[in-house]
Amino acid sequence: MKIKQLKEKDILSAIRKEFSVSFPELLLGIGDDAAVVRPGKKLVLLTKDLLIDGVHFISSKHPPFLLGRKSLNVNLSDIAAMGGMPKYALLGLGIPSSFKPDWLEKFFSGLKSAADKQDVALIGGDVSQARKLTVSVTIMGEAKSIITRKGAKPNNAIYVSGTLGNAKQGLLLLKKGVKLGDSKESDYLLKSFLDPSPQVSLGIELNRLQAATSMIDISDGLSVDLLHICQESGCGALIHLDSFPLSSDLLSFQRRPFNFALHGGEDYQLLFSVPTEKEGSIFKLQKKYKITLIGQIIKERRVYVIDRRGRKRLLPARGFQHFD
Amino acid sequence: MKIKQLKEKDILSAIRKEFSVSFPELLLGIGDDAAVVRPGKKLVLLTKDLLIDGVHFISSKHPPFLLGRKSLNVNLSDIAAMGGMPKYALLGLGIPSSFKPDWLEKFFSGLKSAADKQDVALIGGDVSQARKLTVSVTIMGEAKSIITRKGAKPNNAIYVSGTLGNAKQGLLLLKKGVKLGDSKESDYLLKSFLDPSPQVSLGIELNRLQAATSMIDISDGLSVDLLHICQESGCGALIHLDSFPLSSDLLSFQRRPFNFALHGGEDYQLLFSVPTEKEGSIFKLQKKYKITLIGQIIKERRVYVIDRRGRKRLLPARGFQHFD
Repeated sequence: MKIKQLKEKDILSAIRKEFSVSFPELLLGIGDDAAVVRPGKKLVLLTKDLLIDGVHFISSKHPPFLLGRKSLNVNLSDIAAMGGMPKYALLGLGIPSSFKPDWLEKFFSGLKSAADKQDVALIGGDVSQARKLTVSVTIMGEAKSIITRKGAKPNNAIYVSGTLGNAKQGLLLLKKGVKLGDSKESDYLLKSFLDPSPQVSLGIELNRLQAATSMIDISDGLSVDLLHICQESGCGALIHLDSFPLSSDLLSFQRRPFNFALHGGEDYQLLFSVPTEKEGSIFKLQKKYKITLIGQIIKERRVYVIDRRGRKRLLPARGFQHFD
Repeated sequence: MKIKQLKEKDILSAIRKEFSVSFPELLLGIGDDAAVVRPGKKLVLLTKDLLIDGVHFISSKHPPFLLGRKSLNVNLSDIAAMGGMPKYALLGLGIPSSFKPDWLEKFFSGLKSAADKQDVALIGGDVSQARKLTVSVTIMGEAKSIITRKGAKPNNAIYVSGTLGNAKQGLLLLKKGVKLGDSKESDYLLKSFLDPSPQVSLGIELNRLQAATSMIDISDGLSVDLLHICQESGCGALIHLDSFPLSSDLLSFQRRPFNFALHGGEDYQLLFSVPTEKEGSIFKLQKKYKITLIGQIIKERRVYVIDRRGRKRLLPARGFQHFD
């Protein structure tokens, strides 16, 4: 049986069943014209992404369960980058008629597992046929205050979470035909690309501690995303390659890991600036999270990198290349 | 110059310029990871649609200005159907590389004209390449209370706004090669399909007057959408073809207008049920809006239609057929 033999009603009813939720704030979820929530006095955050097969992912190489997870998680990462708490999700899905119901089931299981992990409720959506698999997710989140890209100040320290460049190496392996299960090292890298984790709890803690003056998630690549912070904040940055957090798995596969760490993209780690008086908070967070100091904000509106031989050069902003 | 020669940054910066807005409630619009609004004590409504070329519209036959308007307006119609006030929009756009910047400019002008008309602010979005033109719109609206599909009760009167079946006839003419400007009658029908108007102010007034026990917008066709109300409310309906509101333009083109009115879809009129004690409010609204009584809610869970010869038969639910 193929998707075109399923009616939209059946699909929606399956979604409704899978995602049946009950929150005090949720007045009306899937099944009417709009979803309705009654927020408290907090800020409401909204974000959305449009992901298209062949442009943002390769469905033939992406297990549907993991694609469902990633579709939600890349959006949660945008909420994490504001220090917000994700609450509600809306899904728009365009499915080619050749896809089988089994695919859809796994995709929704993945989406649900990611939603459950962060206590996010899917409250609305829209399913239709499409030539290419198309996924559009909207997330509504909330926060008492937010961390934007605008607040970095000279002498702020620049920190990054996790390790960098793994997703790009994972994509490269995927394109070469490496599969999940082939080896422990390749699995780690493949999963960094296929199944990234949004840094939601870290974002919330940084916000609660008021420890970051600016923040962004690394989706396009550190060089591009750091530039976004500098442009929005009207400053520059100096980063040290020697300090870069790299995974042993990346090092075991890649002779030029720094290119991947600087320009790779899709790592969905958090990049943020911290004023001197708040570095104590970061030291405490480092007991719970991998957070690494990689440089500082400078007044001059340029981004410099100090390479491993101590040479200072301008950092070109080369971001993640989509598939086509 | 083609879209692929434009950078996403340029497109976003054009959008940001075009849609630069300043609302007291809007803390952060386009240009960061998420949009942030600070709602009051009202309910927040969220709705989203995914529209794909060849499935939901035919871009080669849809002037881009009108397609931009329609992309927003079909979503506003969902907010209207709850009696809500639309406030914010997020746009996800996937554009084929063959499209010209001129097309994009017109599309955004159209979107903006529809947004301006309803005081809606575009506060976020995402642009990427796609094989087929793909439009995903999310609307956030607000309301003090809402009108769902669930509240219809036996003996409630059934009303519909505007006239029915025009959009379907417009689509038929469009497929036959009829163009805007060919005649006054065909223009009216073509515009019903290409440039529908969401019934936002009527929805808000019905809500304010607490005049409707249930409401839906007619996107799939009256027969399907009335069935939605009946299923959700646990009741049935009896409608009279003789009372159906039909435009003179539809009558001049179509010998079987009732089929179109019953099953046509894409009219984006409001269909709602009204208890006896509130019919006085409807009479007052009829001075301002075209609203027609077409039948009543019944206890038996079936939908009957009385045809023009007085014969009563079950109404089959046959909805709008998408293009493929």
